[in-house]
Amino acid sequence: MQLKLLSETNGQKTVVVVFDEGEEAVSELTGVAIRHGLFAAHFTAIGALSAATLGFFDIDRKDYVKIPVPQQVEVVSLVGNIALHNGEPKVHAHAVVAKADGTALGGHLLEAHVRPTLEAVVVESPNVLRRRVDEKTGLPLIDLSQPTKETHHGSEHPRRHDSKSVRDTG
Amino acid sequence: MQLKLLSETNGQKTVVVVFDEGEEAVSELTGVAIRHGLFAAHFTAIGALSAATLGFFDIDRKDYVKIPVPQQVEVVSLVGNIALHNGEPKVHAHAVVAKADGTALGGHLLEAHVRPTLEAVVVESPNVLRRRVDEKTGLPLIDLSQPTKETHHGSEHPRRHDSKSVRDTG
Amino acid sequence: MQLKLLSETNGQKTVVVVFDEGEEAVSELTGVAIRHGLFAAHFTAIGALSAATLGFFDIDRKDYVKIPVPQQVEVVSLVGNIALHNGEPKVHAHAVVAKADGTALGGHLLEAHVRPTLEAVVVESPNVLRRRVDEKTGLPLIDLSQPTKETHHGSEHPRRHDSKSVRDTG
Repeated sequence: MQLKLLSETNGQKTVVVVFDEGEEAVSELTGVAIRHGLFAAHFTAIGALSAATLGFFDIDRKDYVKIPVPQQVEVVSLVGNIALHNGEPKVHAHAVVAKADGTALGGHLLEAHVRPTLEAVVVESPNVLRRRVDEKTGLPLIDLSQPTKETHHGSEHPRRHDSKSVRDTG
Repeated sequence: MQLKLLSETNGQKTVVVVFDEGEEAVSELTGVAIRHGLFAAHFTAIGALSAATLGFFDIDRKDYVKIPVPQQVEVVSLVGNIALHNGEPKVHAHAVVAKADGTALGGHLLEAHVRPTLEAVVVESPNVLRRRVDEKTGLPLIDLSQPTKETHHGSEHPRRHDSKSVRDTG
Repeated sequence: MQLKLLSETNGQKTVVVVFDEGEEAVSELTGVAIRHGLFAAHFTAIGALSAATLGFFDIDRKDYVKIPVPQQVEVVSLVGNIALHNGEPKVHAHAVVAKADGTALGGHLLEAHVRPTLEAVVVESPNVLRRRVDEKTGLPLIDLSQPTKETHHGSEHPRRHDSKSVRDTG
């Protein structure tokens, strides 16, 4: 996997991430997020995979039903974000993949085995998004109400500014 | 629904909007756009819905054919923009949703009933996009040829700058 | 097709491109990229088409299998990037299209015949991305390891800065 900073302005960075054949994109991107300290980012990607595992969240069972895609597919849409969960960056991505006849399958992206390439554009903000487990569903949902001080691995990041969130009641 | 400003530079803002269970995302986002004065924005989102209504525009009938999706689905792609139409911000979004077996359905997004969450990243520019009804189709298409002065609810917005549009003839 | 600059900051531009009925979007966008010197850009788009040709890359044959879509469809997701290949901007886009009943098809976007509109948001960086043909697959993959000096049509672009790429080894 290779990275390149495309632009930076006021701390917002746009980075291209190109994944190589054989890499599993969710874990690779999580590694990038941990190493580079991405605490509030969003991304899109296109490419192709030798295999994928999609997920459908079963509200009653409070767990993902796995949808195996054991074949070469095009990644026709991949949209996601990165936020902190339990102090570590967590990648949340949904994908649409297409088979040789164009048939599209979609879901929460659990695994994406790259072949031959996956091209992502990641926009990182100098801010912090946090997830917190929602009791009702068991899912780590983005929580904009949490306090503004961020401690990550025991140390504060003074460059991070955590803007006020607003509950918008219409 | 909650909002958080992630970054701002030269008037361009990146905002995270997290919708809550039970909210209808198109009308909620329209409300956000009206209250916060989003006149030229684009967004992506992922999440899940308890039900949706997609649309397919029938060119001959000049109207949307409704495609009801009366079940829990993952929002595997949601891409859209916000522009002014008749002086009010209008959300235009297309979505791909996926059923429990991964089957994907897509269309113009008419209704999206959030469950348990929908996470959107909205990029707002300090500019103005306008729609105008196209006589041939009856659709409000983005019109980049309109005059630069913006009057919204009878008052001018001096902070808005309306850059020149260009017809690019190759 | 019409263009409008929505915002610009530190050389990063956000441009709305609205394609007209009858235009083929891949070649039109390539023309825009050539005329405006887009060497490192990414985009999303929504709209509708009178016909499309999608592609699925056959790893063994090292070529795209064409998937004709000879009917009116909604463009429910279009994600792509622009990079230099052999000194010229090249558009790489993947699309999901939906039929009248919502059925979704996806693939590498080879042709997209617009009807009645296609609305794209293109984010251009003042940087350079380059593709190079990968021997194994025959595909022009993004190559972040190439030298930093850019010559395009025989002349250097002094405004371009080419940031260092990083191989991220975890």
